[in-house]
Amino acid sequence: MADWHTTVTPPALARLLTTARLPEPPTARRPAYRTLAGQIRLLVTEGRLPVGARLPAERELATALELSRTTVATAYETLRGDGYLRSRRGAGSWTALPEGAPPPGDALHPVPPDEQGRTLDLGVAALPAPQPWVGAAAARAVEQLPYYAAGHGHYPTGVPVLREAVARRYTERGLPTTPDQILITTGAMGALHLVQRVLVGRGDRVAVEAPSYAHTLQALRLSGARLVPVPYAHHPTARWDQDEWQRVLRGAAPRLAYLIPDFHNPTGALIGEDQRRELLAAARAAGSIVLVDETTAELGWGVPETAPLPRPMAALDRAAQVVTVGSAGKLFWGGLRIGWVRAAPALVRRLAGERVYSDVGTPVLDQLITAELLGEPLAAVRAHQLDKLRATAHAFAATLPEHMPGWTFPMPTGGLALWVSTDGLSGAALARTGERDGVRIASGNRFGSDGAFEHHIRIPLTVPAATVPAAVERLAAVAARTATGGRLDTPDEAQPLAV
Amino acid sequence: MADWHTTVTPPALARLLTTARLPEPPTARRPAYRTLAGQIRLLVTEGRLPVGARLPAERELATALELSRTTVATAYETLRGDGYLRSRRGAGSWTALPEGAPPPGDALHPVPPDEQGRTLDLGVAALPAPQPWVGAAAARAVEQLPYYAAGHGHYPTGVPVLREAVARRYTERGLPTTPDQILITTGAMGALHLVQRVLVGRGDRVAVEAPSYAHTLQALRLSGARLVPVPYAHHPTARWDQDEWQRVLRGAAPRLAYLIPDFHNPTGALIGEDQRRELLAAARAAGSIVLVDETTAELGWGVPETAPLPRPMAALDRAAQVVTVGSAGKLFWGGLRIGWVRAAPALVRRLAGERVYSDVGTPVLDQLITAELLGEPLAAVRAHQLDKLRATAHAFAATLPEHMPGWTFPMPTGGLALWVSTDGLSGAALARTGERDGVRIASGNRFGSDGAFEHHIRIPLTVPAATVPAAVERLAAVAARTATGGRLDTPDEAQPLAV
Repeated sequence: MADWHTTVTPPALARLLTTARLPEPPTARRPAYRTLAGQIRLLVTEGRLPVGARLPAERELATALELSRTTVATAYETLRGDGYLRSRRGAGSWTALPEGAPPPGDALHPVPPDEQGRTLDLGVAALPAPQPWVGAAAARAVEQLPYYAAGHGHYPTGVPVLREAVARRYTERGLPTTPDQILITTGAMGALHLVQRVLVGRGDRVAVEAPSYAHTLQALRLSGARLVPVPYAHHPTARWDQDEWQRVLRGAAPRLAYLIPDFHNPTGALIGEDQRRELLAAARAAGSIVLVDETTAELGWGVPETAPLPRPMAALDRAAQVVTVGSAGKLFWGGLRIGWVRAAPALVRRLAGERVYSDVGTPVLDQLITAELLGEPLAAVRAHQLDKLRATAHAFAATLPEHMPGWTFPMPTGGLALWVSTDGLSGAALARTGERDGVRIASGNRFGSDGAFEHHIRIPLTVPAATVPAAVERLAAVAARTATGGRLDTPDEAQPLAV
Repeated sequence: MADWHTTVTPPALARLLTTARLPEPPTARRPAYRTLAGQIRLLVTEGRLPVGARLPAERELATALELSRTTVATAYETLRGDGYLRSRRGAGSWTALPEGAPPPGDALHPVPPDEQGRTLDLGVAALPAPQPWVGAAAARAVEQLPYYAAGHGHYPTGVPVLREAVARRYTERGLPTTPDQILITTGAMGALHLVQRVLVGRGDRVAVEAPSYAHTLQALRLSGARLVPVPYAHHPTARWDQDEWQRVLRGAAPRLAYLIPDFHNPTGALIGEDQRRELLAAARAAGSIVLVDETTAELGWGVPETAPLPRPMAALDRAAQVVTVGSAGKLFWGGLRIGWVRAAPALVRRLAGERVYSDVGTPVLDQLITAELLGEPLAAVRAHQLDKLRATAHAFAATLPEHMPGWTFPMPTGGLALWVSTDGLSGAALARTGERDGVRIASGNRFGSDGAFEHHIRIPLTVPAATVPAAVERLAAVAARTATGGRLDTPDEAQPLAV
């Protein structure tokens, strides 16, 4: 097979292994090779070490980690046996996934069932498509297809009816917007990928909230950006730590600040207008672009109908420094893959010019469906989705403290998840144990920029409320196994290297 | 506005300006500043200089080009006046597009009409959606939607029914394929972007046919790859120049060779099996990945039904070195944005792991529509599309020599275009003149890796046959204006720098 591997240097791998902050040392001693193999496997399955990455030669890694060469060689042999490493004489060794394994770091694939055939996916924070609205909108979109079918179907900036519908919705939310400020993308991730590709260079600093959305953090890492985490101030309610933001913006002058001010993922925090204004002023002084992720902005399920929401960041922007990303994936359906960028028309044109070389445009039919849904059905669909999220949030709030008295979480007023502190239990270890018990769990360290938040998990509000009691019981069982006997029948991947 | 510009160094801009091989010197002398401004504008509108690129300071560029600083300053002033450059004191100057201008290099946007309101788009090689098949398939896909709507709709590798349908079609074409070798992408460009992102690093060499598909060349350029062009041998019929390929593969050991062996874009050439085998052997010896673009592979409109086609490159691949990209965009419809990668299952998993951070997945509904079309309707749809392409090819062959006796082209047996030699007339100048006459023309140099093929244009076979005589008449009018008086009322952007 031809050679297509990127290379991980010994210091880089050593850094990954040490900064990953894997769980606390166990009491029993286990062979160092099993610990090393388990940690590398964890880095691969969590997507923090890409599949196909060439690992250092055994001798080099042994030197970097101050381990014996035999330990490294045996760890590599173990990984090969489990399908997580491939080697070829003269060509080195590179990370892999066993046949049939899902892509790494995904939370996007079916959970392997437990012995009783049960599965519970707490990895994905996404709702099913609200029916009958999506089906009806799809049928109406198909009726419009003949008009579009007469052309070549390429719309780098988006189909006009959807650009207009998105602009109208911003205007309704208090942010006057024209269609030429909107670029339709293939999902919000498509928008983030494009903005990052155009605006962020390798080695550029990007300031991020800590915690923040796991997939964006990983996308930024893969692009070579240097993440500068700015922790949340959690008391009395979650808010930005303005002193820390001031310090980072002034000191690091990041190219870009990535923010989720509206029902933040994973915490659900909603940032007030005063904080928004202060941060914009600081970013302006630093010359930083402010990238606002509004994927969850329409999901205020705990906000009274009559209470005014803080205005969108872009509505407070006096320096054309805000670029906003939005999505139909959470309010409507992820299977539509419709997202967008709201920016100055000149930047929209520039992004469109670039995306011609990535996906050319977003499929027409899904744009027509989304335009339909943003019209007359919007109020009913939104009420339906918010009812579901609210019911699930209340069900977790009623059930979780009973089964897991030490676990705590701030109760948000919107968004897709609860950010749960696990009373010192490792989220990564919970995830590993869960994977064998048919329960997928999103470990907290995936939402940190350098393996922080080890003792957190994110619980999605997108499971049906009626299933919450059973879900909490299974989660409690996983927690019990993790805390005590869970390690007995699993390898030692959840243990730290002694480096 | 925050700062988000990439920088073009003076030598890089000088190289672009000199290697662009813009048209022959005119007889009349024009001010050097107008020539410089016109050339920079052309680089921007053709997408060869990205919008938002920071240009060198006047003094630096003057030194690099051996021009006076006044000449450069006046050229910049002209570009600013026309909307192609923006400047801010202390921040420099960066390329731009005038308000309302389409994104650069696109051939994807409506052509501005001429004074009589007529337009003719010879830029895009894409057919409308074949009806009633696409509409019917869309209706059937909507019926299947409820099943998928119950889930979150994320399919990083693709919806199973489409992976199976694409694998089945490969098997029918003589290349046994299993669904786990297929990754569904957002269009063939999505596939190329992903493969390039994972397999090609900045500065890596990529060998390409010369000419080759314009958008892939530009995508590779933007990714920082170094293109190594390998010219076609054009006599007696277009084929690969095997000696030259051997030399390049041996000498440059490129990371990847990008090939379109089946009804090549833009020439329509079909490469025989012997040449395919030889090239694969040479690539294997060089350790190069062979990226085969089969976007046009199903479009053999001039091949007798009974004649066997050369087998797909991957069917001749003994070293797992071939990665194939395919598309539903040309046979069915570009508005579906469905493409795919065929590769070893391990690479498919790796690509899926990466695409989670670009577009997550491709919309579900369009995948269902494509799976439908690859089933029972396929034979009828394909016959319909090939009939249209064949009729248009014959209409051009009958009409073009009459109006443009000096223009020549090889008559292909498939594909989407004619590759026309314009008898010494500049394709870029034809494109500029055409843009003012309501006729969009794809100039040859967009299909070369460094501004080669200036005296070629690509004529798409996707205009209706009945409109070909009128199209040729308008093309002839543009050519006449370009050759003689066309320059009188246009600026001098089509003239070379005296460097």
